[in-house]
Amino acid sequence: MGRVLCTGLGPGDPDLMSLRADRAIRAAIHVAYFRKAGRPGQARRIVEGMLRADVTEYPMEYPVTTELPFDSPEYIHALATFYDGWANRLATLAATEDVLVLCEGDPFFYGSFMHLQTRLQDRVPVEVIPGIPGMVGCWTATGVPITWGDDVLTVLMGTLPEADLIRHMAAADALVVMKTGRNLPKVRRALEAVGRLDAAWLVERGTMPNERVVPLAQIDSTDCPYFAIVLVHGHGRRPEVPE
Amino acid sequence: MGRVLCTGLGPGDPDLMSLRADRAIRAAIHVAYFRKAGRPGQARRIVEGMLRADVTEYPMEYPVTTELPFDSPEYIHALATFYDGWANRLATLAATEDVLVLCEGDPFFYGSFMHLQTRLQDRVPVEVIPGIPGMVGCWTATGVPITWGDDVLTVLMGTLPEADLIRHMAAADALVVMKTGRNLPKVRRALEAVGRLDAAWLVERGTMPNERVVPLAQIDSTDCPYFAIVLVHGHGRRPEVPE
Repeated sequence: MGRVLCTGLGPGDPDLMSLRADRAIRAAIHVAYFRKAGRPGQARRIVEGMLRADVTEYPMEYPVTTELPFDSPEYIHALATFYDGWANRLATLAATEDVLVLCEGDPFFYGSFMHLQTRLQDRVPVEVIPGIPGMVGCWTATGVPITWGDDVLTVLMGTLPEADLIRHMAAADALVVMKTGRNLPKVRRALEAVGRLDAAWLVERGTMPNERVVPLAQIDSTDCPYFAIVLVHGHGRRPEVPE
Repeated sequence: MGRVLCTGLGPGDPDLMSLRADRAIRAAIHVAYFRKAGRPGQARRIVEGMLRADVTEYPMEYPVTTELPFDSPEYIHALATFYDGWANRLATLAATEDVLVLCEGDPFFYGSFMHLQTRLQDRVPVEVIPGIPGMVGCWTATGVPITWGDDVLTVLMGTLPEADLIRHMAAADALVVMKTGRNLPKVRRALEAVGRLDAAWLVERGTMPNERVVPLAQIDSTDCPYFAIVLVHGHGRRPEVPE
């Protein structure tokens, strides 16, 4: 009897994965990872050069659903079918041998693996190795702590409605906004609405080659960054600096 | 010319530190870490067995300030003097050789290293190696993803006033509360006020020996857990499960 093991890969630099993740990747004979159709996939790129010569790879390609509304029955059905199919395939493999699923960042922090886990957990043993979340790599790249003292940190998805972004941004000290991409103009407007655009940074490909750290206000509106996270550092109570 | 290098150690299990952190720790000849006076220190405990035989250790013991109010001039002065003294000492060492500072979790996420960094950054080269934050180890220990879909995650310190805790808890989907300890009764009341006590978990010593994961509502009010984080998992949009 094998297991399904899911490992976090950390923020992108292979040197920032955990010792346990490194060992699991180098030992694996079945390796699965999510990717968009026709792309090499970021998770697969991180482990380049680390896999066994006799490894079998299972690229789990998301169904193409760009023309479907996010909450439509068709979209929900396409994704459910996709996850059902891969859960069945991984469970079959794990009946006899270990299968390793690769996950960027940390598997339990907005990761796709959870959709497999919910389908697998009563059928085969499932284990998760945590990783450094992508946002941690991004704030390290800025060279400034994200939180101080008793700062409140809020993590938001750029997919949220603008009014929700504004409400949460106004309440928090430190901010992380993920899933930016085409939501970037909206994220920018929301930050401007709460007076925090000038304190915001955009970090693209944090810890990876071609990492870019720029003030968000300087980004051209036609610029469409990849793997980008928006950060606003906290300004909390700093006991050693009387104000 | 040396540098001051600060490495995150991850959530507690030495196997969960990064490859880069592992190499830096095994190579270091000067190793500094914070601890409370008279305690071995959690950071030092994590690297047990990893240090060179000829290492020189610098335990940086926080001044005893328990009798001082947090915002009193005396408290602020005692801490400033402490950080000034150690910044000077590390800068002197780094003039000729590398110095490694150990930090539990991730250095830029509520870490004490930032107080040294602000004092060192114009004097010697400073580098930071990120780590898996303690909260990531804790949510991994629960076996359930902390965030789904477009959940909003908010991280709070238990030291905040009860009204602030309630306000932030009511607005977020997923919650992490750190610095619990003697603030635990207050954190519990705040969660109850927003109807989320029954969904809250307490994780003590996440990823470490004697790890404990229990529903917060089951904790006896006289129980005073160490290294404990309170978590409420998100309940966000889950595309594959029609509601």
